[in-house]
Amino acid sequence: MPEPYEPYDVITMGRIGVDLYPLRTGVPLAQVDTFGKFLGGSATNVAVASARLGRRTAVITRTGRDAFGDYLHQALGEFAVDDRWVTPVDRYPTPVTFCEIFPPDDFPLYFYRQPKAPDLEIHPHELDLDAIRAARIFWMTGTGLCAEPSRSATLAALEARARGGITVFDLDWRPMFWPDEDGEPGPGQVAAAREVYARALAHATVAVGNLDECEVAVGEREPHAAARALLAAGVELAVVKQGPKGVLAVHRDGTTAEVPPVPVDVVNGLGAGDAFGGALCHGLLAGWDLEHTMRYANAAGAIVAGRLACSSAMPYDGEVAQVLAGGPMPAQPEPVVPTSADPMPADPMPADPKPGGPTSAGPTSTDPERDAS
Amino acid sequence: MPEPYEPYDVITMGRIGVDLYPLRTGVPLAQVDTFGKFLGGSATNVAVASARLGRRTAVITRTGRDAFGDYLHQALGEFAVDDRWVTPVDRYPTPVTFCEIFPPDDFPLYFYRQPKAPDLEIHPHELDLDAIRAARIFWMTGTGLCAEPSRSATLAALEARARGGITVFDLDWRPMFWPDEDGEPGPGQVAAAREVYARALAHATVAVGNLDECEVAVGEREPHAAARALLAAGVELAVVKQGPKGVLAVHRDGTTAEVPPVPVDVVNGLGAGDAFGGALCHGLLAGWDLEHTMRYANAAGAIVAGRLACSSAMPYDGEVAQVLAGGPMPAQPEPVVPTSADPMPADPMPADPKPGGPTSAGPTSTDPERDAS
Repeated sequence: MPEPYEPYDVITMGRIGVDLYPLRTGVPLAQVDTFGKFLGGSATNVAVASARLGRRTAVITRTGRDAFGDYLHQALGEFAVDDRWVTPVDRYPTPVTFCEIFPPDDFPLYFYRQPKAPDLEIHPHELDLDAIRAARIFWMTGTGLCAEPSRSATLAALEARARGGITVFDLDWRPMFWPDEDGEPGPGQVAAAREVYARALAHATVAVGNLDECEVAVGEREPHAAARALLAAGVELAVVKQGPKGVLAVHRDGTTAEVPPVPVDVVNGLGAGDAFGGALCHGLLAGWDLEHTMRYANAAGAIVAGRLACSSAMPYDGEVAQVLAGGPMPAQPEPVVPTSADPMPADPMPADPKPGGPTSAGPTSTDPERDAS
Repeated sequence: MPEPYEPYDVITMGRIGVDLYPLRTGVPLAQVDTFGKFLGGSATNVAVASARLGRRTAVITRTGRDAFGDYLHQALGEFAVDDRWVTPVDRYPTPVTFCEIFPPDDFPLYFYRQPKAPDLEIHPHELDLDAIRAARIFWMTGTGLCAEPSRSATLAALEARARGGITVFDLDWRPMFWPDEDGEPGPGQVAAAREVYARALAHATVAVGNLDECEVAVGEREPHAAARALLAAGVELAVVKQGPKGVLAVHRDGTTAEVPPVPVDVVNGLGAGDAFGGALCHGLLAGWDLEHTMRYANAAGAIVAGRLACSSAMPYDGEVAQVLAGGPMPAQPEPVVPTSADPMPADPMPADPKPGGPTSAGPTSTDPERDAS
């Protein structure tokens, strides 16, 4: 374990939970007989994705004080994500999330996060602000803004960053987490979210989101307009994920990268956005040019979209390099459902990190869906 | 489908949900990689158990309006339990329940029924009171009394029965469903439950419960004292499940049956109580003597305790007869995890119902644990 306050490459803050994914795809849940259990939650998956790429990462989140909470700590350890800021909440169970898998583009999620998810019980006074300040990248998500005390804690972390280093706002829009005053989804949702999103954007240096998320955040869903609006809201880099149309990234200095998708036989689009996020962190830390960073992140997302799992499907650098070089999509390492007896496999295709590395014009990949749970 | 109001043998009312059971036993959830999905919920399991024994059954309950709700209807159909009174609730998801399996006697349950289970949203005005009156057995559970409107609906059903036919109160005590005023478990729980349990006991003709449940219901946990107190509270037959000490049944007319357990290699004690309940219904309908009914129900419970699953593990009559005749415990029919393509298998060991049938002095079985979810 690193010494306290030795800077982390990446600290993420947000959801954690147990993902239960059908071991049979293309059919409704009624016809799914068995489910695999995976570490999940968007911010957690981003930390796993960064760790897989060799980055020293930690996640700030909370679990229930229960058997699934124990599992999440164990899994974080196996994925080499530091769990020192993952604490238990007595009152609420560890969330579970089911999905249905209808490739290529329909992956309904069923969240069990009621009456409240432990990860929304992060209090400002619990934060290790020195560590948050010192991290090379701090990554937070829109879900963390949906309820108190998590909202205040997330904003406190952003304020502590004071726009130092790289601070990423994953716009992550989940309408079910933003009920109206009557406890149901409604017309007040977006207005409430946009107000607090604006506060977070003022403290972030990078914003990442798909078109729906950009529209919630800044009222624009035309990609270039959305990017401009995000820059106007305060960030230095706006990354707009357009699904089948690829990714648009616009830096405040005028640099623009627009990378197309490549076909991928989508197995499960969930988690692709988190893979993209972890790879984005890796590229930003490496100082790669914007286009290469986007191609790399896009390829990472495509690899996960081609696999059933999310967290355990996050690619190693060598796998991303293979896709960027025009090679075939690397297969999911076996077993898809890890057994706890198995340690995290070593990178099946070791490759040196290549800061400023290949600018292969090879196929890039799509980022078909938002993050997992 | 039967015509409306043609009497059912058994109508149960209470919980329904999706049970997710580890496909690996004896280890904590952290080490469970895959889960099987099963129809669950105590009242539902009792209906399945009765149907397996050839009884025409229906269940009164509610699901979420979601993919798991669709599954529950499908599963009820496969188990030949009428789902005409199983309606969707918009606001709440279908509950899911996980368990850990530590044989022989530790099976922690993890309920996801927050903020409220749809099966607690049964309203009195929705009840088909004519059908409830006409059923040969009406079976309700303590959980149905824990919250409104289910409490009023359950009491309305009991009042409609007016002690006609056989009305069973499964004392089913789940403290997590009876929070104190502050929303947490506390000292007011038992007092609140006992008050409403007393109202239900006044309308029931049969009470079934383990020692903990008897203590909640009538303040007694010595088996004979508990039986006397239940009779004093209004029922005609008190069935006290003593775990490893077997079962005590006392009728108001003085008939007493006390049957010992038989050893069973317990795989998963969950569901044994529901198998016992379904078999109890079968014996009561058949008019068997009290001791045979108890031996039969005990054997049914033991069979399920020796199997991983609950609903799909409910025994056929031929299997119970085999155990009562001193034969080996029948194996779980394959597959343990049913695939929806498989119809419900025919009774693997057909046997004529034997009203007043065998009074084998062969081994009887234990009922090691309360019902499943």
